[in-house]
Amino acid sequence: MSGIAEVARLAGVSKSTASRALSGAGYVSAQTRSRVADAASSLGYVPSTAAQSLATGRTQNVGVVMPYVTRWFFAEVLEGIQSALLRRGYDLTLYNGSPGSASRRRAFDEALIRKRFDGLIAVGLEPPGDELDRLLALGKPVVRVVGTDDRALTVGLDDLDAGRRATEHLLALGHRRVVFVGAAGTARRPHVESARLTGYRDAMAEAGLDDEIRHVPSALSMPDGYAAAVDLLSDVRSRPTGIVAVCDEVAVGTIVAARRLGIQVPAALSVIGIDDHEYADMFSLTTLRQVPREQGTQAVDLLMARLDDADAALASISLKPRLIVRSSTAALGRGAIPRPEGS
Amino acid sequence: MSGIAEVARLAGVSKSTASRALSGAGYVSAQTRSRVADAASSLGYVPSTAAQSLATGRTQNVGVVMPYVTRWFFAEVLEGIQSALLRRGYDLTLYNGSPGSASRRRAFDEALIRKRFDGLIAVGLEPPGDELDRLLALGKPVVRVVGTDDRALTVGLDDLDAGRRATEHLLALGHRRVVFVGAAGTARRPHVESARLTGYRDAMAEAGLDDEIRHVPSALSMPDGYAAAVDLLSDVRSRPTGIVAVCDEVAVGTIVAARRLGIQVPAALSVIGIDDHEYADMFSLTTLRQVPREQGTQAVDLLMARLDDADAALASISLKPRLIVRSSTAALGRGAIPRPEGS
Repeated sequence: MSGIAEVARLAGVSKSTASRALSGAGYVSAQTRSRVADAASSLGYVPSTAAQSLATGRTQNVGVVMPYVTRWFFAEVLEGIQSALLRRGYDLTLYNGSPGSASRRRAFDEALIRKRFDGLIAVGLEPPGDELDRLLALGKPVVRVVGTDDRALTVGLDDLDAGRRATEHLLALGHRRVVFVGAAGTARRPHVESARLTGYRDAMAEAGLDDEIRHVPSALSMPDGYAAAVDLLSDVRSRPTGIVAVCDEVAVGTIVAARRLGIQVPAALSVIGIDDHEYADMFSLTTLRQVPREQGTQAVDLLMARLDDADAALASISLKPRLIVRSSTAALGRGAIPRPEGS
Repeated sequence: MSGIAEVARLAGVSKSTASRALSGAGYVSAQTRSRVADAASSLGYVPSTAAQSLATGRTQNVGVVMPYVTRWFFAEVLEGIQSALLRRGYDLTLYNGSPGSASRRRAFDEALIRKRFDGLIAVGLEPPGDELDRLLALGKPVVRVVGTDDRALTVGLDDLDAGRRATEHLLALGHRRVVFVGAAGTARRPHVESARLTGYRDAMAEAGLDDEIRHVPSALSMPDGYAAAVDLLSDVRSRPTGIVAVCDEVAVGTIVAARRLGIQVPAALSVIGIDDHEYADMFSLTTLRQVPREQGTQAVDLLMARLDDADAALASISLKPRLIVRSSTAALGRGAIPRPEGS
């Protein structure tokens, strides 16, 4: 097997530069890194990462804790994290498991405690914070995506603001009978759901509509939103004129349900979501936009800044969503001419 | 910091058992593993995985190469792989990058060559095989998901069979003007698209319908399928009575497009997909079912069998899809009573 000296010679760089290029530790230009990688590849040179880790005490690896990769938000965050880590020469070890699953238990009980990472990015941890406690106890830097917590740097949407502004958009259009669809029915809700629901309630209360506050539970998927909306909209007497959906997947499920029941959107029902999901445009959905891929990138930036300097003054990032008005919302009683599904 | 001896004492096991439990190498019951993990956790004990790797030559880590995690199929495969690896005490390092992206180039040029894994699972590699060549050159076992190739163990759907049977379902219902929606427009298509399209063509040719063979390109997403179907269905003269969609996301986009244009499904248009996506039921979609999560699990099983015994006789797995008839397909000219969207 070839050695680092041969790789360096072939690439036309010093041994230390070749070593830095292959380990990812320390600055090397992209061009040089590529040249060294080509040289290493053509010579079949394999750096011993185990030996590197022992020597440097660093793994050049970041752990990512996730509840799902099968949902739009989480998959987008993960792709953002991955591309940012690849740019910095870091590997990504995934610890994925849904709340309460055997995978999640194993990830926390067996895998994470091996601490094969320099730091962690934890996405959508379960409340009320037991999971965060366990991650912090590992003694490595932790950056969160989603949520708010003084104990760890966090990148996240201002979910309270999102729920409030989605509601205010419908109220400004004259709607009064506005229902929130989508948070868990129990009091112990994940942060995103509880904060958005609270934003809705605050906006309703401030408009003097306490009596109209109404919440229909749904899991955060299109089929679950569809099922919840079919139930909600089937009763003509209690049918709302406006719906604030906890996320775009629930909003799209709601629009599909309305069409099934022959209810025109937005002429007879206005629907607003939160996300700007890749399906939002296709369903002409008015929504509050967030860009989860960028949240993943920002989480990597924060973690790297922390790894570079344990004492650096770093602040959590709270993002304000942007209102994107399409044609799923309209003024009460003055809805657009009924248009068919998807238009 | 505590040592392995203290962990073993607290857990009531021998040092070697405690070591096996924490390293994941060698058999330990789940109960014992959990007890040792608790003991290690409460004592703040951290095994040096770098030292372990140097000693054993094994990383207890599997690399997963993926083009996307934002699509249903890939996300489901990834969750299947993750849960199977966690069960076996292995970590998962993700190398995600879409075809042609900077991330994919970095994954292949810079990250994978560090070989921080005992083996690889490669999902949906690009044709014609350059990528597989590069992975095999790393000298570690490689298992593929999707595709066919004699050079590596593969778990995959029989895509030719899927395309053929989806088409035959519509032909058996009396349809003749049947269009395939969804593969790339160029000849150099990913395996899944080319095999399913070939299956469609074969079935049409065998039915004597060579003149009716028609293929409308679309990327494999709901919005892209929607856009392609709007174009296809807008021209009344060339409108088909049956559509074979390359996957369920394209099929659902097609159904939404049909509703927009006032075309009843299945009365005026039958649509069949391939996948049994989580949205299939909500749109009453007839489809050929595959279970990508199980494909992920099977890929792990194959890789572990190979790691356990480099000479074991192992065979690739080709899965036959199962036809799931819902109400998006009906006999030509005898379609069900028109029902609104989502019913």
